[in-house]
Amino acid sequence: MMSTGELEIVAFERGPRTSYAACGLPYLVGRLVDTPELLIARTPEQHRANGIDVRIHHEVTAIDAKASTVTVRGLDTGREAVEPYDELLIGTGASGIAPPWPGIDADGVLQLRTLEDAAEVERRLDAGARRAVVVGAGYIGLEVAEALLERGLDVTVVERLEAPMGAVLDADMAAGVADAMRAAGIILRLGNAVTGFTTADGRVSAVETATGPVAADLVVIGLGVRPNVDLARAAGIGVGEAGGVIVDDHLRTGTPHVWAAGDCVESYHRITGRSVVVALGTHANKQGRVAGTNIAGGDADFAGVLGTAITKFRNLEIGCTGLTEAEAGAAGFDAVGVITEASSRARYYPGAQRMRIKIVAERRTGRLLGAQIVGGEGAGKRIDVLATALWNGMTVEAVGGMDLSYAPPFSPVWDPVLLAAGKAASRI
Amino acid sequence: MMSTGELEIVAFERGPRTSYAACGLPYLVGRLVDTPELLIARTPEQHRANGIDVRIHHEVTAIDAKASTVTVRGLDTGREAVEPYDELLIGTGASGIAPPWPGIDADGVLQLRTLEDAAEVERRLDAGARRAVVVGAGYIGLEVAEALLERGLDVTVVERLEAPMGAVLDADMAAGVADAMRAAGIILRLGNAVTGFTTADGRVSAVETATGPVAADLVVIGLGVRPNVDLARAAGIGVGEAGGVIVDDHLRTGTPHVWAAGDCVESYHRITGRSVVVALGTHANKQGRVAGTNIAGGDADFAGVLGTAITKFRNLEIGCTGLTEAEAGAAGFDAVGVITEASSRARYYPGAQRMRIKIVAERRTGRLLGAQIVGGEGAGKRIDVLATALWNGMTVEAVGGMDLSYAPPFSPVWDPVLLAAGKAASRI
Repeated sequence: MMSTGELEIVAFERGPRTSYAACGLPYLVGRLVDTPELLIARTPEQHRANGIDVRIHHEVTAIDAKASTVTVRGLDTGREAVEPYDELLIGTGASGIAPPWPGIDADGVLQLRTLEDAAEVERRLDAGARRAVVVGAGYIGLEVAEALLERGLDVTVVERLEAPMGAVLDADMAAGVADAMRAAGIILRLGNAVTGFTTADGRVSAVETATGPVAADLVVIGLGVRPNVDLARAAGIGVGEAGGVIVDDHLRTGTPHVWAAGDCVESYHRITGRSVVVALGTHANKQGRVAGTNIAGGDADFAGVLGTAITKFRNLEIGCTGLTEAEAGAAGFDAVGVITEASSRARYYPGAQRMRIKIVAERRTGRLLGAQIVGGEGAGKRIDVLATALWNGMTVEAVGGMDLSYAPPFSPVWDPVLLAAGKAASRI
Repeated sequence: MMSTGELEIVAFERGPRTSYAACGLPYLVGRLVDTPELLIARTPEQHRANGIDVRIHHEVTAIDAKASTVTVRGLDTGREAVEPYDELLIGTGASGIAPPWPGIDADGVLQLRTLEDAAEVERRLDAGARRAVVVGAGYIGLEVAEALLERGLDVTVVERLEAPMGAVLDADMAAGVADAMRAAGIILRLGNAVTGFTTADGRVSAVETATGPVAADLVVIGLGVRPNVDLARAAGIGVGEAGGVIVDDHLRTGTPHVWAAGDCVESYHRITGRSVVVALGTHANKQGRVAGTNIAGGDADFAGVLGTAITKFRNLEIGCTGLTEAEAGAAGFDAVGVITEASSRARYYPGAQRMRIKIVAERRTGRLLGAQIVGGEGAGKRIDVLATALWNGMTVEAVGGMDLSYAPPFSPVWDPVLLAAGKAASRI
């Protein structure tokens, strides 16, 4: 084994790759990214050059926490071996949710989770696919739908809920997203449950829904992910109600010398105080660093999540942080939601874009609980200002008084964030 | 007098206008804004329609705080009158700094503070001006230089300090701005003191500097402003060491029933704890609202300033908040400055722009003291995230762990702000 400083580090990976940007896959399909290689952050060879003994095509099949060993199967050889560890990190990630719908294993029904999935989409397009159905109108569904539209396909999006982006936007904010999708030519079927797939010769030909079939040459499922916890659970390592491995703020599991990080763990939600699974690269990256620092004898902590997210559909930017008004109510807060219309630049400066900001605040205290932004260029990343305010437990009144930057090319004299917070404060 | 609710509100203004966007003047000159009218936020007539008795061309020449009266001269009639008040707000603003250089009153030497100044620039251009000199390389100087360049003039910028943007950028960050100015064709004379102006028939023909003359048909002075406090001082109302009217967080002066707001007052700097004059529309707007709320019997406070600012030179965006490393040292902090290079988007996503972020932190505590950003599109407004962190007294380590938004079109998986804060934390 190789060593980095005083540590010998071995990484077992059942797949063929190590670090690649799954978030970039829709843009590869949409041809904004030219080649798959651009999405590979670090190859096994590069990790090895950094002193990490990466063993691809090796699956860990069991953990014996008492003996401090793992059982590893070489997928190329079929041979099993028992490997000892001093400290073990579980980074098993997550798998795309695939309900047990009849026909879900048919050719042409896939998820967009790996570079191999993206290659399969290309093969379908080469084979003449014309009609695509995307199942799910969350951010993955939106990004995939946009990409397939760019490739010239007829795109239908089928969503069980009554609005797109239901996990992160209230319905009054999601309406603008639905409008943009339809204006771009997407057939958007909301409030429509998928029941299965019609196949012909093992290939998908239609998506069956509660309101009838939708013809399809290609189906992409974008229903989110579920943590891969079977390995941990079988070893007696604690798995929580949200479905992820339970870790503390140092990324320790409840089992001595076993750590976990990334999409397979539960994280502390700073607003609700509950454990949640948020499978995003930004958390996985931070958690990897925190766990690594601690395993190596340092002291780092993962401070939790707010549920901040951003995406775009064509020119429409969508950002959110914290709780939606619906989530806040469900979590027991007496919450008020206030929507403000604002401009990204001084109204007289060219290129000013409209945006809508929704502020969710606790009625009794005025504390910010969450925010949503939908608008043109320059809208989305403003969510980070509100995320930072939320991280610090600010009231909306305090947010409205902050010293944010102003110049005509960048904002009106009252930045949209200040305007939205001030309006929310006036309604409490 | 007219009334708004129960208040009678009279506003005396010695000039011809009420609310106009002085910040937009460079963009009017640069023809990004088509007509002067677009810069007028609210005319006297519009204010009157809102119930405010606006009297333009009326100058208040004296305040008698004991008698609760002001003396007002009608500039059109020359007549003086004494007007009583229950509550008085001083909003006398600021005047551009114009050193007593020989020739400064010559035709063709001006500042860009009013719509009339902008009209004078147009007259000079119509009269065939070809060579412009801008005195001062602060944000006004930069914006004016860019505008005159757009209009096809030969532009020289003369700056006393060794770097542009010296008030808000450390020299190691300002270098990129100087490079961009020169690359655009500006002749940038740094470390060069103006000593006066050569005139011919009362018109400017050259700017005299310590290193020789610079021929000029048009000179724009951009040296910042000084609060207009003569009226207040003559009435015995307190003026501070920074040169502005002293007010508390409710915008009360030390004199009963007299309030002050806007460019004429001193503000509390949240990092140094000192009183400073920061003449920016964003503070003036907030202060106007706070003072108005309090005068009307409400309870609002102005929570102070950080020194947040933003501007751009062509495609280069420049943002800052809090203290520069130099300022932090001068203010007695044991400060460390750390510069990070980052990308505005995922490196594989089209249009990713480079930026440099400088984080200034207190060595002992790790507390964020200030930040500077210089970079391409998407760089500048990120300063608001750091301003919000600074507002809340965060450490750089805490900033590095925040839940900011990530998607490939908007940032790398580690947003530049997180990257910069994390790097700073590792150096403390």
